[in-house]
Amino acid sequence: MSEDVENKVKNIVEPSILAGFQEFLPKEQMLFTKMQDTIRNSFESFGFIPLDTPVLEKSQVLLAKSGGDTAKQVYRFEKGDTDMAMRFDLTVPLARYVAQHYDSLVFPFRRYHIGKVYRGERPQKGRFREFYQCDIDIIGNETLNLLNDAELVSVINSTFEKLDIGDFTIMLNNRKLLGGFFATLGIGDPTDALRAVDKLDKIGAENVKKELTEQGIGSEQAEKIIALTSVGGFPAEVFKALDEMGIRGKNEMLDAGLSELEKVCGYIKMFGVPENRYCIDLKIARGLDYYTGTVYETKLNDYPELGSICSGGRYDDLASNYTKKKLPGVGISIGLSRLFYQLCAAGIIKADGRATPSAVLLIPMGDTLDYTLSVAKKIRSSGIACETYLGEGKLGKKFGYADKLGIPYAIVLGEDEMNAGTITLKDMRTGEQRSLESVDEFVKMIALR
Amino acid sequence: MSEDVENKVKNIVEPSILAGFQEFLPKEQMLFTKMQDTIRNSFESFGFIPLDTPVLEKSQVLLAKSGGDTAKQVYRFEKGDTDMAMRFDLTVPLARYVAQHYDSLVFPFRRYHIGKVYRGERPQKGRFREFYQCDIDIIGNETLNLLNDAELVSVINSTFEKLDIGDFTIMLNNRKLLGGFFATLGIGDPTDALRAVDKLDKIGAENVKKELTEQGIGSEQAEKIIALTSVGGFPAEVFKALDEMGIRGKNEMLDAGLSELEKVCGYIKMFGVPENRYCIDLKIARGLDYYTGTVYETKLNDYPELGSICSGGRYDDLASNYTKKKLPGVGISIGLSRLFYQLCAAGIIKADGRATPSAVLLIPMGDTLDYTLSVAKKIRSSGIACETYLGEGKLGKKFGYADKLGIPYAIVLGEDEMNAGTITLKDMRTGEQRSLESVDEFVKMIALR
Repeated sequence: MSEDVENKVKNIVEPSILAGFQEFLPKEQMLFTKMQDTIRNSFESFGFIPLDTPVLEKSQVLLAKSGGDTAKQVYRFEKGDTDMAMRFDLTVPLARYVAQHYDSLVFPFRRYHIGKVYRGERPQKGRFREFYQCDIDIIGNETLNLLNDAELVSVINSTFEKLDIGDFTIMLNNRKLLGGFFATLGIGDPTDALRAVDKLDKIGAENVKKELTEQGIGSEQAEKIIALTSVGGFPAEVFKALDEMGIRGKNEMLDAGLSELEKVCGYIKMFGVPENRYCIDLKIARGLDYYTGTVYETKLNDYPELGSICSGGRYDDLASNYTKKKLPGVGISIGLSRLFYQLCAAGIIKADGRATPSAVLLIPMGDTLDYTLSVAKKIRSSGIACETYLGEGKLGKKFGYADKLGIPYAIVLGEDEMNAGTITLKDMRTGEQRSLESVDEFVKMIALR
Repeated sequence: MSEDVENKVKNIVEPSILAGFQEFLPKEQMLFTKMQDTIRNSFESFGFIPLDTPVLEKSQVLLAKSGGDTAKQVYRFEKGDTDMAMRFDLTVPLARYVAQHYDSLVFPFRRYHIGKVYRGERPQKGRFREFYQCDIDIIGNETLNLLNDAELVSVINSTFEKLDIGDFTIMLNNRKLLGGFFATLGIGDPTDALRAVDKLDKIGAENVKKELTEQGIGSEQAEKIIALTSVGGFPAEVFKALDEMGIRGKNEMLDAGLSELEKVCGYIKMFGVPENRYCIDLKIARGLDYYTGTVYETKLNDYPELGSICSGGRYDDLASNYTKKKLPGVGISIGLSRLFYQLCAAGIIKADGRATPSAVLLIPMGDTLDYTLSVAKKIRSSGIACETYLGEGKLGKKFGYADKLGIPYAIVLGEDEMNAGTITLKDMRTGEQRSLESVDEFVKMIALR
């Protein structure tokens, strides 16, 4: 009987997950969870409040504004009379939440949300249909000053410092500056032009100019656009270059954007962000149309090809779909699933072999299970995760279990150890085996690491 | 213009969530997150491995076996050609995962999973359509000895000790014992009888007997059923009572169940679970039909009306829908969303007023923002979450912000403090205000709590 036929006879369904979805084996899961925890701890250290909203929302609420690609990608369905949809980001649920609970919230409302979102995109390498976003936002009531825009840069800085995935640069721009500049050229909607400009690094100035002129933009204007959006670097240099270009005083919005960007850069310094960690890049626009001031992107210096690993910006009005209250905000988002995939693929991070939280495997030898369990309890109560091997078998098999799970230590407890109150400790990574006077000695040893 | 009409003019959608779904305000969220963390830390301290599977699965895989109520409650839909469904528990995805990744896993496979599951039940008080389950399971390859059944009792014990929600009792039974006993009465499928027996505490023996006889069970047999399932208490007492009833030696399955239960109770003692924390209750059967040995329930001693707050049991074969491999396991589950709702409703737990992770609010007075931000950085780097009030306004308003968020401390930094390197500390709960020599003094003070 072939395996296939046999499966049918036994009614066995081939175990598999949906295309574009992701799950990890224990080693990768441990690494992913660690990154999640690092991000969470960093967000909490700045006083951001945890938030957890439903994965499913009313379609009419979730899709109040969305059209085009987003609406097509949404997992939307009916059950009974109810039209519902899975969230496609964490920002729309935040807007709904703040509008709904406005009277119960304290402003500025500083929240973080680490959760899964869903987009039925065409599956491709490193793009997932279910993925984690790690968002923080600060929402003001009527007003929110620019210090908050600067603080988020310090949060990005601390978070990626702690993630320890290499040198990074946070790049800033301002949508008013861009919008005002395009207005001086008579271009009201710069969306297409900015899409062309976004390719500057990839295809070069000549090709961008070609694209711009194909959009109906005059040659002289196209050159001006390329000249401005090519400006980038340390803030002092950028502002000097802009002054030399003489762009001030020609458009109110442009001037406002320039002034905001100057202030934010000054504040960032006050927040103690090292100067080599942030710069201005005037071609950054962010796709989303709701950013109205500061915009951010973050790049790994040694892996610019990964694109932005943390992006965000300032928006004038978070929740205009749900309330008449004016709620300006500023936020950032880390697309953790994609970032994790990229970091692994580029070899920047790697599972360290640890496939369990257990730091110790306790192995009873002979009639010592009772004693072993009491030792395990003691180790655990001093904050060290451990487990006792409860199965039968030879010592080699038990060490093998520790080895395969990457448990760093094994403690063997035979009758000699039990009678003397000592323990035999094996360092699974070096193979070194030695006797310790007591469990306490082991606990101290671990605490000192 | 009425508000309603005005909303339509402005295209404002009323912000609300789906019926039967739940979200928290910050104070409740902080409390919920704390419980989640306690459970997670407890599970990890026993070396359970984190697992995170997709919320959406292929319908054909997820619903391989389910029929009846489960299938009706599932959120199932099609997108493109794909028939998919949201998970309704964490056990079926675990079975699929273990079968799918069998070759890459180390057995016994000890995993925990804290995640949301979805059931389109009729909404009612304390029942949610999206809710958290906190599961641990130990899966063996071919075999898994009874020590594991006992270990889970010690995990339940540690976890609820740490949750600190009052005295609790873990109640044990064995499905083989029940099954064998009913077989001796000639009752092959005891499902209906057990459903009647489950009401013993509520409706009394007489009414249960009536229900049993209505099921076609003879009066004498009904009395035997009630006599057996009324047995409960400390293990030694129960085994003595059973011996006096003379049930041993009449049915192989019954004897096997009795022997398993005796062994498990003996092991539980070895695991160091206090004797007043567990007992036997022979009427416990658990609704799910896949339990084949040990079954658990957990009750709060002072709130038995809450029902079981942590349940589970042993199953012979986890993944028979997905693999021919025999994978016996034992697991427990905490329905956290429901438990949290019940604990709050009963007044057993209460938000402590803390609505943010911030332990300190830093308030710059005068031209000291720069200094304040450096103090914040120092406090944060010693592991204390804090935030700086970045808005304008009077001191009272700023203290009000700390107060409303339940931030325990405020530090005011004026020019005097800046010049002297001191800080002015206000305990927000007592109102007491005093001067500290340095930031370090504050850090030490917090560390000592």
